[in-house]
Amino acid sequence: MAATTQDEADIRAFIERWTAAVRNHDYEGVLAGHDSDIIMFDVPPPLQSRGLEEYRRTWDLFFSWHRPSDAFDVRELEIIAGREVALAIALMRCGGAGKDGQHTELDFRLTIGFRKLNGSWRVVHEHHSVPATDE
Amino acid sequence: MAATTQDEADIRAFIERWTAAVRNHDYEGVLAGHDSDIIMFDVPPPLQSRGLEEYRRTWDLFFSWHRPSDAFDVRELEIIAGREVALAIALMRCGGAGKDGQHTELDFRLTIGFRKLNGSWRVVHEHHSVPATDE
Repeated sequence: MAATTQDEADIRAFIERWTAAVRNHDYEGVLAGHDSDIIMFDVPPPLQSRGLEEYRRTWDLFFSWHRPSDAFDVRELEIIAGREVALAIALMRCGGAGKDGQHTELDFRLTIGFRKLNGSWRVVHEHHSVPATDE
Repeated sequence: MAATTQDEADIRAFIERWTAAVRNHDYEGVLAGHDSDIIMFDVPPPLQSRGLEEYRRTWDLFFSWHRPSDAFDVRELEIIAGREVALAIALMRCGGAGKDGQHTELDFRLTIGFRKLNGSWRVVHEHHSVPATDE
C-alpha cells in the first residue's frame, strides 16, 4: 500500500471538522470539501441525491430532527487511503427528536468516498444507512 | 486523476462476474476476490458483518429469499479508481419471494470499496441499503 499516514490523518481530521459542523448546524462547514458531483445515499428517502444542492437539502431534513446539542458522533472508524482515492468506513450515532418530541438516538452506518484534487481530499460520495426493518 | 481506464474496466468486469455469481447462488464466485478483513453493511440486520465467515452468512440469508432466476442487477454504476484504492457506486435491483410467496422486486443502493493487492482489485468493503421507512 502506498497510503501515507499523513493521508489517513488528513481524512481523520476532515471527518472531525465535518461532524463538528453537523453538530452545530453549520452549513458552510458541512458542505466544505464536498465535490460538486457528490452522490449521496441518505438514511431517509430519496434513493439518491446528486450534486451540492440536493446534498444540502438532505441536511435541511436532518436538521429538522437533530438539535445542535444532539449527537452526530463517530463510534468506529477505518480509513483506507491510496494516493488519489480513499474510503472511510464508520459506525455512527446521532440523536434527535422522536415523533413524541422525546429525545431518541440512532446507530447508523456511514461510508465516505474521497478523491484527492489539487492536493486536498474532497468528498465525492456518502452512503448513510440503517439496517432495514421488516415491513 | 491517475486512474487508468484499465482499472475501471477491470472493476466493471469484476462486478459483472460477481453479480452473475450472486444470481446463480455460486458461493465460490460470490466470495472470490473478497478480502479476509471485509467490512459488510447489509440491507437487513446486523449493523455490520466482519470477515469472510460473517460475509458469507449474509448471503445465506439473501439466498433464502432470492431464487436463482431472480434479479441482482446493476442499474446505474459509477467507478472512481485511483492506483491503489477504488470505489464503485451503484443503484441496484434485486428480486425475491415476498412474505406471501409472490415475487417482489427491491431497488437498493450499493457502495463497494476496492484495494489493489499484488496487481488485483480486492473487495474490502460493501455497503448495501434501502432508504429507511418511518416506523
